[in-house]
Amino acid sequence: MSKANPPQQAQAKTRALFDKAEQLAAEFAATAVERDRRGGTAKNERDSLRQSGLLNLIIPVEYGGHGLDWHDTLQIVRIISRADSSLGHLFGFQHLLLATLRLFGDQWPHYYRETVKNSWFWGNTLNPLDTRAKISADGQDWLVHGTKSFCSGATDSDHLIVSALTEAGGKLVIAAIPSDRPGIRIHSDWDNMGQRQTDSGTVDFDRVRIYDQEILSRPGPLGSVFATLRPLIAQLVLINIYLGIGEGALAEAIGYTRSQSRAWFLSGVESATRDPYVLKKYGEFWVDLNAAALATDYAASLLDAAWRQENALTEAERGSVAIASATAKVLATRAGLEVTQRLFEVTGARATSAKAGFDRYWRNLRTHSLHDPVDYKLRDLGEWVLNAKLPTPSFYS
Amino acid sequence: MSKANPPQQAQAKTRALFDKAEQLAAEFAATAVERDRRGGTAKNERDSLRQSGLLNLIIPVEYGGHGLDWHDTLQIVRIISRADSSLGHLFGFQHLLLATLRLFGDQWPHYYRETVKNSWFWGNTLNPLDTRAKISADGQDWLVHGTKSFCSGATDSDHLIVSALTEAGGKLVIAAIPSDRPGIRIHSDWDNMGQRQTDSGTVDFDRVRIYDQEILSRPGPLGSVFATLRPLIAQLVLINIYLGIGEGALAEAIGYTRSQSRAWFLSGVESATRDPYVLKKYGEFWVDLNAAALATDYAASLLDAAWRQENALTEAERGSVAIASATAKVLATRAGLEVTQRLFEVTGARATSAKAGFDRYWRNLRTHSLHDPVDYKLRDLGEWVLNAKLPTPSFYS
Amino acid sequence: MSKANPPQQAQAKTRALFDKAEQLAAEFAATAVERDRRGGTAKNERDSLRQSGLLNLIIPVEYGGHGLDWHDTLQIVRIISRADSSLGHLFGFQHLLLATLRLFGDQWPHYYRETVKNSWFWGNTLNPLDTRAKISADGQDWLVHGTKSFCSGATDSDHLIVSALTEAGGKLVIAAIPSDRPGIRIHSDWDNMGQRQTDSGTVDFDRVRIYDQEILSRPGPLGSVFATLRPLIAQLVLINIYLGIGEGALAEAIGYTRSQSRAWFLSGVESATRDPYVLKKYGEFWVDLNAAALATDYAASLLDAAWRQENALTEAERGSVAIASATAKVLATRAGLEVTQRLFEVTGARATSAKAGFDRYWRNLRTHSLHDPVDYKLRDLGEWVLNAKLPTPSFYS
Amino acid sequence: MSKANPPQQAQAKTRALFDKAEQLAAEFAATAVERDRRGGTAKNERDSLRQSGLLNLIIPVEYGGHGLDWHDTLQIVRIISRADSSLGHLFGFQHLLLATLRLFGDQWPHYYRETVKNSWFWGNTLNPLDTRAKISADGQDWLVHGTKSFCSGATDSDHLIVSALTEAGGKLVIAAIPSDRPGIRIHSDWDNMGQRQTDSGTVDFDRVRIYDQEILSRPGPLGSVFATLRPLIAQLVLINIYLGIGEGALAEAIGYTRSQSRAWFLSGVESATRDPYVLKKYGEFWVDLNAAALATDYAASLLDAAWRQENALTEAERGSVAIASATAKVLATRAGLEVTQRLFEVTGARATSAKAGFDRYWRNLRTHSLHDPVDYKLRDLGEWVLNAKLPTPSFYS
Repeated sequence: MSKANPPQQAQAKTRALFDKAEQLAAEFAATAVERDRRGGTAKNERDSLRQSGLLNLIIPVEYGGHGLDWHDTLQIVRIISRADSSLGHLFGFQHLLLATLRLFGDQWPHYYRETVKNSWFWGNTLNPLDTRAKISADGQDWLVHGTKSFCSGATDSDHLIVSALTEAGGKLVIAAIPSDRPGIRIHSDWDNMGQRQTDSGTVDFDRVRIYDQEILSRPGPLGSVFATLRPLIAQLVLINIYLGIGEGALAEAIGYTRSQSRAWFLSGVESATRDPYVLKKYGEFWVDLNAAALATDYAASLLDAAWRQENALTEAERGSVAIASATAKVLATRAGLEVTQRLFEVTGARATSAKAGFDRYWRNLRTHSLHDPVDYKLRDLGEWVLNAKLPTPSFYS
Repeated sequence: MSKANPPQQAQAKTRALFDKAEQLAAEFAATAVERDRRGGTAKNERDSLRQSGLLNLIIPVEYGGHGLDWHDTLQIVRIISRADSSLGHLFGFQHLLLATLRLFGDQWPHYYRETVKNSWFWGNTLNPLDTRAKISADGQDWLVHGTKSFCSGATDSDHLIVSALTEAGGKLVIAAIPSDRPGIRIHSDWDNMGQRQTDSGTVDFDRVRIYDQEILSRPGPLGSVFATLRPLIAQLVLINIYLGIGEGALAEAIGYTRSQSRAWFLSGVESATRDPYVLKKYGEFWVDLNAAALATDYAASLLDAAWRQENALTEAERGSVAIASATAKVLATRAGLEVTQRLFEVTGARATSAKAGFDRYWRNLRTHSLHDPVDYKLRDLGEWVLNAKLPTPSFYS
Repeated sequence: MSKANPPQQAQAKTRALFDKAEQLAAEFAATAVERDRRGGTAKNERDSLRQSGLLNLIIPVEYGGHGLDWHDTLQIVRIISRADSSLGHLFGFQHLLLATLRLFGDQWPHYYRETVKNSWFWGNTLNPLDTRAKISADGQDWLVHGTKSFCSGATDSDHLIVSALTEAGGKLVIAAIPSDRPGIRIHSDWDNMGQRQTDSGTVDFDRVRIYDQEILSRPGPLGSVFATLRPLIAQLVLINIYLGIGEGALAEAIGYTRSQSRAWFLSGVESATRDPYVLKKYGEFWVDLNAAALATDYAASLLDAAWRQENALTEAERGSVAIASATAKVLATRAGLEVTQRLFEVTGARATSAKAGFDRYWRNLRTHSLHDPVDYKLRDLGEWVLNAKLPTPSFYS
Repeated sequence: MSKANPPQQAQAKTRALFDKAEQLAAEFAATAVERDRRGGTAKNERDSLRQSGLLNLIIPVEYGGHGLDWHDTLQIVRIISRADSSLGHLFGFQHLLLATLRLFGDQWPHYYRETVKNSWFWGNTLNPLDTRAKISADGQDWLVHGTKSFCSGATDSDHLIVSALTEAGGKLVIAAIPSDRPGIRIHSDWDNMGQRQTDSGTVDFDRVRIYDQEILSRPGPLGSVFATLRPLIAQLVLINIYLGIGEGALAEAIGYTRSQSRAWFLSGVESATRDPYVLKKYGEFWVDLNAAALATDYAASLLDAAWRQENALTEAERGSVAIASATAKVLATRAGLEVTQRLFEVTGARATSAKAGFDRYWRNLRTHSLHDPVDYKLRDLGEWVLNAKLPTPSFYS
């Protein structure tokens, strides 16, 4: 809203991408309850995303992508997440992994071009908190051995971002490799209460060969101020998923209250839509979600400004994105949990039927919102407010 | 705790009943996650309850029952609900339906004796807000025709409490009938996000014959001050289920944090059990649940005093039970929702695995806590505090 | 932040006005505790505001004013309110009353020029909920008779906006009159727990003569869509005062915790600035205030867009300002109450000394935040979210 | 309520003490707003307490006292605090200081008899966190030198409990001395935002002589399990003051809403007493205060049981009082802050007049509730719930 107007042509293209996203979201919504029950890999939907061209949003035009900024890319993550937050997650991680290439290695132009050319869907096997996978030199090349958990989107992926610690010094190494590289075993062992179609299971690496040019070493993981934008992009992808879940839940609750809810027999009103407590609760949902959305969009606009700075980015500028993201994270988590928990209070007992599947909003958000503890985001913010200390960059801040 | 000491013998018997309940709860807990997934009828567990003799807790000793008071009976509902709130629900409703017989009709001694003799499990088809079932005279007898929803525990029941409106005046009639009476069709159509083994589905009545002596007409539904204790017993059964869910969730969370949770890598502590935010959150869980338990036990003690009054019960005494119950309802709902939602914040991301099944606590509580809106309980309490107006007895207050 | 860049010259002038406001705020802050204790009229500070030229912020350049937009004007209201919310209130109402002239009558150019020329401080005697003052025709002129309460800033004012109901039809009439018009008695009877130097007392009108040209009748009160912006400007003035109070409280708390608070002896940390609960609480203060600020600035930007529309303003556009303002109102009230109540938890027991005067933040906000009930703003928002119904314009929505 | 019935005679005497307390509370309430404004020493009211005989509640009958248990004594602290929490504080501390004598020294029978005989009002100069006062041997006797802050009730007291650290080892020594002992200077320097008539100012000790028999050394401060009940009695005194403040605020709000509040003009109801949001808020006040009261009374009953154990008291039994007290502390603080902050939302803007003085409830509670941080009570509870660790006895836990 507050952005400068782009030239007409770019605007039309952007509009078309948003329209495409809304159309896909509508398709995904139609089967979301059923696919949530089933779990597993959303093969059809992943292929729809491949075919849509939306996997290239953040890739600059000169490399064949759509050249969208983060603000718009994240809005589209939110649109998909409203309908299905598992798909929003996979879709958001595609862009996070593209950002990882851009920020950690200088070979990104190659990968960007190939991603566009081959409609690659990237999968994640980067997980710094799981230290079981090790990397060691093997002559010219490298070998990765061990296991990674929470590998969202590895199944059915075309390429993977992988992380491992050097056997010697425990240094984090990150690389980009084809998903069918020999020695990789991607398990279908993700069976969780939420985000059930994210395939966030385990991947085993059995002496998997990695070539030097696949290692993202210039500047390497968090290797420059610019590179430390990576965790903030991760955070903003998550925040937009959370917000999308909350907004999707609100939209579905509205439809239900209007069409199906009954006034409580002691309320003295004729329709649930006139109940003073129902109205107030909808007002609260709005306030919470709107505050989260304003903070999220504000953080995205700071991210775009920081992203454009590239290597001129200062620690203070990076810090302002971190503070705005942490703020948005707290607000989106809070708002989402409130809406997904309380929507039943404005829809009523019959809205608990498994067919309606309204509990999936809470299950999805509750699961994903544990990625990193909100309490520590609040502590980071307190350090900044009280002690003027910006968050120390890490893979989670 | 605060009760007068019973004679030694009674105490030992009561202790044995509590032990039996704890033992059954442990058995139910072992399969609760699996049975939650499956839904349907918990046939084995229902039979265990039948065999345990616990279905007769509230039946006076002179009719062959255990002669427990409501305080102790409700404590046992809570114990079962900690392990499995579907079973707690069915078990609690057994006692609610026994109370219904006692309060609404004078034929209760007959039913009490038969319940003990035959280990009857009572099912519910009483639902005053569903007005589709009608009753009409058919010569000497009566015929019920129509449909009831939310018929918890009708499946596999031995006897039913049924409600219907007279064709003529729309007057509520309640009766006790065998579950296999011709014309009754109990559907297995309960498929909800929570309380999945309560069989709270639909029952169809196709011109089902009811005999005069089966109708609870002296004093009839809410037909005396004493009879208006029925909805308060219903409320206290629910409250103890909610509290049981919260307490069960807390116990399981403690076990998980102690044995499996990891300290957050930025926390500066070595174990999740030493994290200041985790500790504070456990403190809050305790405070909320303990407040709810004290209020619930207080309401139960008032109920016992009112129950002993029988027809001497005054509206003011009845009102004090209603106020105490509504207070406990608000506290138990609040506490339970907090604990079942936030337990994940003290256990961590890995606790979302479907195998652990921790989301069932929230799904069960969220589903059951919509029985009647807490906002209207708060309004009732406000009417009393501000306007000195006691709640008007209804099936929900 | 998100606004288009103004030409360099305008920017420098705006900067100078902000600097002036900050300088005045620092002066006001130095005596705020003492003046809060005293109550009464802040004569010196009112004169400082007169001399500062800041009373003309919103008056267009062509009439001799500074031509600021609402966004910037309201930012300056917030700056003053951080230091002293009584003065922020009087200062904000100056601009609200100038807006009233602009929106309700066509004689505003005259009043704008005179305001600039004479450094008029406007006082309020407009209060639609107090229906005691009546207006009746007296030949050519009009006579106002009766009483008004909550007349903020009437004392020491140069001109008043006055409202009265016609004797006949009870129609609301609003006029602009000199404060020394015979028959006006402004009482010094404001003695409240907060906003103690706003002189929000009673004014008696004893057959006060009003001339036809003083009546704001074209289009009259809320007489056009454009004119219905008036209550939204009133709301945004209040919101910025609330936010200023919260921000002022936070700033003072930070200074105190850093310099004077002691670590709790059982905390295990050496300084209050390292206490995990103190840090988290500061994080929460930040999140709440920042969300409120983003929502408030967003509403101000919508107001500016609507203001520029003048008579082309549509009901939908007006409605969007109303929704954004109501949202900001809820957030600013919530955030302010939290910060002003909880700041003591991060400063400690010694911060309750009367000399520090920290309680004034809560007293000021608590008093002013009762202007109109937040619950009804939430209901309005619920009507919009659930029922797509925009708020009906009134003097409070 | 839940206590065993006392013999008839004792019951009548207890009733008379409660009646006396209610009568004094009514007298105190009549001047509470005016005295809050004035601050300083409530000489008349202190003398009324002396004359009432209520200063001896906890002193056993055999020493001339009323022999009340803690449950009833604390109820009377609550009654006084409803009307005036400064007086409730002084009155509660009288009993805390009597308990200090009983628990820390074996000379208590002497002091108990003298207290009754002379109607002594005890004052506090015991403050373990203020380490400035030192004690050193001076031949046969001892000398105390230095300063103490937060000396509630020292002004106009007859006898003082004093604490100091030994010059040598920094060991805490506690003694009972006459308030007019040479060298004691009690300053009238308490000027705080709340609890304004508690005289909680500074006391200077200029080489004040203390005799051996005045030192409470058998068993000494926290010198036995039984002696560690002292901080729990302190906590329960505070908790009952907080609860009294909340209950007093609620009672006054009810009176105001009923008699003076107006329905909001957009509410659609004719009286504030019918407003759905006002009613719900009163319901919430009730629930919060009632939960706190039940938890407080429960803790008091555990304290009485522990008190009766004397030196047979076990750490586990002491721990259960500590847990129940900490629970009640959290609930009473929360409930009180909610009610004292939000009462204005159910009374309206005009209830902010200084004459009504409603802000004193919040100022009093906010001030006193900072005695020790509630966050650390929650941490203690978390340690117990999660790690089965009882609070380590200290002067604050």
